[in-house]
Amino acid sequence: MSLRIYKLYFSPHRADFKKLKNILGFVPGNLKLYQMAFRHKSVAKQIKEGVKNSNERMEFLGDAVLGSVVAELLFKLYPYKDEGFLTEMRSKIVSRANLNQLSRKLGFDKLIQYDSRMISYPNKQGSLLGDAFEALVGAVYLDKGYQFTREFLLMRIIKPHVDIHTLENTETNFKSRLIEWCQHEGKEVTFVPVDNPEGESSKMFSIEVLVNGEACGLGRDFNKKSAEKLAAERACEYLKIIEIA
Amino acid sequence: MSLRIYKLYFSPHRADFKKLKNILGFVPGNLKLYQMAFRHKSVAKQIKEGVKNSNERMEFLGDAVLGSVVAELLFKLYPYKDEGFLTEMRSKIVSRANLNQLSRKLGFDKLIQYDSRMISYPNKQGSLLGDAFEALVGAVYLDKGYQFTREFLLMRIIKPHVDIHTLENTETNFKSRLIEWCQHEGKEVTFVPVDNPEGESSKMFSIEVLVNGEACGLGRDFNKKSAEKLAAERACEYLKIIEIA
Repeated sequence: MSLRIYKLYFSPHRADFKKLKNILGFVPGNLKLYQMAFRHKSVAKQIKEGVKNSNERMEFLGDAVLGSVVAELLFKLYPYKDEGFLTEMRSKIVSRANLNQLSRKLGFDKLIQYDSRMISYPNKQGSLLGDAFEALVGAVYLDKGYQFTREFLLMRIIKPHVDIHTLENTETNFKSRLIEWCQHEGKEVTFVPVDNPEGESSKMFSIEVLVNGEACGLGRDFNKKSAEKLAAERACEYLKIIEIA
Repeated sequence: MSLRIYKLYFSPHRADFKKLKNILGFVPGNLKLYQMAFRHKSVAKQIKEGVKNSNERMEFLGDAVLGSVVAELLFKLYPYKDEGFLTEMRSKIVSRANLNQLSRKLGFDKLIQYDSRMISYPNKQGSLLGDAFEALVGAVYLDKGYQFTREFLLMRIIKPHVDIHTLENTETNFKSRLIEWCQHEGKEVTFVPVDNPEGESSKMFSIEVLVNGEACGLGRDFNKKSAEKLAAERACEYLKIIEIA
């Protein structure tokens, strides 16, 4: 009996293998990697002092692999565009809003494990989807290697789901778009620094967007500008100001 | 006669092949890729409106591939560190100052083609080295694929030349280090916005560091904070404030 047949029909985890095969298009090698990719920190266990078995480390890895695959795609797709254009296009493709939407389209929302009681913040769930998407890329990379991940991303994700040429014309300055929208709607928007969660690196900036006093998006990064940008992006998504291609 | 023997001993480009083999440790497949990687824009030709055959596009690709290889290395090297730590470590390894130094150690300064008359700005040459390093990574990727590039970077570059554990304890906040140094030396430091080169994307910020009025480093990025950071890093290098591990 082949390992593939065993996994899909006889393994005690056959339901999980099947679900992943249906969504991803291939049978996972090491199921544990995929389980970790879909495990939000709200349901993760501490495996050693200060480290949880959540998908956050895998997100770091997947983000890098995704960046590399998309860089090559754009490099080859646009042989006569300069590096400024390539950089901007990549940031549109891997923007949180785009990855959230991809994640939802692919049905990852049904796979993510999280504690819904702990995710009360309105926009958290949005970021949770894109984070899981990146973590999944990390899991595929660890399970199957670079070439496989590249093919998977290009053929299974980007080609059918990302309209690159529409993104070319999409404006993605979320902060200015948010501010314009608020002016138009007569609402007041403010960016306020908030405290980091306990135990978090003090080098991180956390910025929250308030629209008429309501928290609409939280951004965190190593520099304040990027944290603001991320917060604005999430607020745009939360307030449904943007439609991604 | 094998292709390898032909390239090294009979090809009209045998001198170039040999030089690259000595520095990189392997015989290049497509020599043109490597020539482009080492071609600074000051000696590049326009190949189509707005695009030059310089190493800038390749730098974009190489930066991404390098980021991915280093991400995996750190992910596996530090199984119990969180993603904040991994992110910080990676930015230390791929910092411009570190890449410049690597580039010099490897002898890339002898391979880079540039117009010395056009590079009058004191610190330009520093950035030129690190930029060429990233472009070289892009060339190796296009020529030989991901696995080869990964092995090349890990075994030929990082293992012998990068002391990761020393970098763990290196402080890399260049801006604050520059300011402290200037206070200590009784010098005045200012960050001033400068105009972008003509034809450059207007979304880029250009920031120059002046120390007692002397231009010591220029940084450019899509956000002002990052441009300042880069400018500070280059100023630190120019003023020899830092020693990289």
